[in-house]
Amino acid sequence: MGTQESYLRLLNEKISDIAFEKEPRELYEPMTYALTMGGKRIRPTLTLMACEMFKGNVQQALPAALAIEIFHNFTLVHDDIMDVAPIRRGKETVYKKWNTNIGILSGDAMLAKAFEIISESDEKIMKPLVQMLSKVAIEVCEGQQLDMNFEHSEKVTIPEYLAMIRLKTAVLVASSLMAGAIVAGASKQDTRELYLFGENLGMAFQMKDDILDVFGDEKKFGKKKGGDIISKKKTYLYLKAHELAKDKTLNSLIYYFANSTFDNDTKVKAISEIYAKVGVKKHAEKLMDNYYAKALAHLKKIKLPESNKKNLLKLAEQLLVREF
Amino acid sequence: MGTQESYLRLLNEKISDIAFEKEPRELYEPMTYALTMGGKRIRPTLTLMACEMFKGNVQQALPAALAIEIFHNFTLVHDDIMDVAPIRRGKETVYKKWNTNIGILSGDAMLAKAFEIISESDEKIMKPLVQMLSKVAIEVCEGQQLDMNFEHSEKVTIPEYLAMIRLKTAVLVASSLMAGAIVAGASKQDTRELYLFGENLGMAFQMKDDILDVFGDEKKFGKKKGGDIISKKKTYLYLKAHELAKDKTLNSLIYYFANSTFDNDTKVKAISEIYAKVGVKKHAEKLMDNYYAKALAHLKKIKLPESNKKNLLKLAEQLLVREF
Repeated sequence: MGTQESYLRLLNEKISDIAFEKEPRELYEPMTYALTMGGKRIRPTLTLMACEMFKGNVQQALPAALAIEIFHNFTLVHDDIMDVAPIRRGKETVYKKWNTNIGILSGDAMLAKAFEIISESDEKIMKPLVQMLSKVAIEVCEGQQLDMNFEHSEKVTIPEYLAMIRLKTAVLVASSLMAGAIVAGASKQDTRELYLFGENLGMAFQMKDDILDVFGDEKKFGKKKGGDIISKKKTYLYLKAHELAKDKTLNSLIYYFANSTFDNDTKVKAISEIYAKVGVKKHAEKLMDNYYAKALAHLKKIKLPESNKKNLLKLAEQLLVREF
Repeated sequence: MGTQESYLRLLNEKISDIAFEKEPRELYEPMTYALTMGGKRIRPTLTLMACEMFKGNVQQALPAALAIEIFHNFTLVHDDIMDVAPIRRGKETVYKKWNTNIGILSGDAMLAKAFEIISESDEKIMKPLVQMLSKVAIEVCEGQQLDMNFEHSEKVTIPEYLAMIRLKTAVLVASSLMAGAIVAGASKQDTRELYLFGENLGMAFQMKDDILDVFGDEKKFGKKKGGDIISKKKTYLYLKAHELAKDKTLNSLIYYFANSTFDNDTKVKAISEIYAKVGVKKHAEKLMDNYYAKALAHLKKIKLPESNKKNLLKLAEQLLVREF
């Protein structure tokens, strides 16, 4: 059974094999850059683990795994343009290092490349794989659009926020797992349960991310606290705090959140204190735990010996480990 | 046998059937807008005609035809952002009507949608179709990158320009035809000849476009003359004129082409006069005729009765008719 490390090595090897030494280099250099910025390759690892769980041939899952990783990195390249984000994983983002046009075009080429690579899969599974990738690609676009809409919307509800992160984050986790099940020839029922495991795991993972942004250990987390607050993201924490806060506290929350005249540290400190005061963290943790419990219930329903599920379970737990 | 008009009707019907009435409307409205701006649907018509030429089932070619049309319109949406083009087909471009982020994202969703629609094709032809679409998508990105590079390059050669328009324009015409051949189950050899027919036809078509931009009848052509001159595109006309012009004429060409202080009309008039003086039009026409002759030679090699090829030949001739 492959370990997470062995999968990561395999994936990185295959990614460096992809012929990106092509002309025009203005197109291919940013693609290589975006793909080798040091991501954790969680999604393609999920594909390989899911394939192995159903006793499929991991080699045959590689095109789908790579396609998903390239697709994921394409979304980051374009999102960074839309979000005007200069830094990702401690490095300059593609559009910032080159320019917006190159960011757009090399992203486009990555999306096309994802489909080219998935088309190297076995003929027999081509149709469900292309359907999986195109469907999730459209859903992620929908999620990104909702996320942008929420920036300008005064009244975002918690269910709306959850629907957005489902599209923007959770369905890709779900689809990554589904791809492995498709390659391994799992039953429709098992594939469905695995998808739902992934969807709920993805939701839990996003909740963790929201919590870490405010309550995380900066050293462990590797990025500065309060990024969501500074960029005025209406996360679950904000929306729940808005619901829980009353009177003066509510006014303070709205005032500090919307105001841009404070320096970032003051703002993050003020909002974090309000979050702590109204006890929003325990709500977020509870929601995260609920999603994870749902995920596990779906995993349980898959008709496989529990020993087959071990690797995947271990990775899921690792993803959700409490660093706060 | 379907006429061009009947194919256009069929395609427009199918395009309006695609479920674009979805949420978030900020994503789907621009997609609908871009797809219904009134293009001539030449590429998907070529797919259907190629399929029919090989006695394939035209209904089965519809997913590929629609995918190609959606893909083509995606390239226009993103190109207009990169080229800062406010108007297309007499209407505001997507990024101009909405904003750049919406242009990027709805374009992305169109590219994904193209693959979703092509995945509705028969399982047996899924692999070559997805390979065709992903390959051409990457090539078109390469072409667009070269086009952008040439804007800032002082010394573009004619072979470099021709290589660029092959990638940016001709390979999509070729692939549109190839898709129809794949659906109809044509032989590898015939499919290859049809592809090369399309590639050369696409080159001829682009030559015509370059000529029309300067020497076309504004009323017939439907857009103002000299767009390429105003946007400083180093087209075949410019590059050939640069080669042919000597001394004072060459200096004038360089001077007027690079200079932005003149009003557009003065500039277009001056450059057009130089083009006429050095006789660049007949060179461009000769090149166009050469490409078309090559195209016809490839069409001839396809092992089918000449009567099968009539429709396609008629459309090709229509595309290249001299309106200048």
